[in-house]
Amino acid sequence: MSTALTVNSYFNDQVKSIALENAEGTSTVGVMAVGEYEFGTSQREYMTVVSGSLTVKLPLENEWKTFIKGDLFIVEANQVFQVKVTETTAYLCRYE
Amino acid sequence: MSTALTVNSYFNDQVKSIALENAEGTSTVGVMAVGEYEFGTSQREYMTVVSGSLTVKLPLENEWKTFIKGDLFIVEANQVFQVKVTETTAYLCRYE
Repeated sequence: MSTALTVNSYFNDQVKSIALENAEGTSTVGVMAVGEYEFGTSQREYMTVVSGSLTVKLPLENEWKTFIKGDLFIVEANQVFQVKVTETTAYLCRYE
Repeated sequence: MSTALTVNSYFNDQVKSIALENAEGTSTVGVMAVGEYEFGTSQREYMTVVSGSLTVKLPLENEWKTFIKGDLFIVEANQVFQVKVTETTAYLCRYE
């Protein structure tokens, strides 16, 4: 069985991701280049840092918080969150 | 600064990866579709399962071993190893 793997690209190719679906659910793994990004969610997102770090301002929070390899943060559906990336960072994003 | 992110594709698009370089070193994050693959290494590889599972026959071993989310296996440079993928799986591969 041949299942094409979908690659998506955002922010002028500064963020790229590959989609996957398995027993854990529907996810993407991706990489963010150094920069600042604002993401919007359409589903709840479980974001795990796979390599590197992400400094994040979550919805309704005033403080930036840094998440390192292995850390998880959750963003509810229909929210906007901001991310500062100071080194190229890999992440897993699971949708629910 | 704009750093293009490189996407590579292998095995007829059944395996795709995105390269990254950061404080942890040089890595790729990728996804393997269901299938069986044989990989060759040119450097030592530290393979971590990010989502899903990989059943692996490491060089010089006779037994297949299954690695799940969070598990790490190491393959020395200039070796060949075989992988069976029974669900779409994301991995982090760090090169040394």
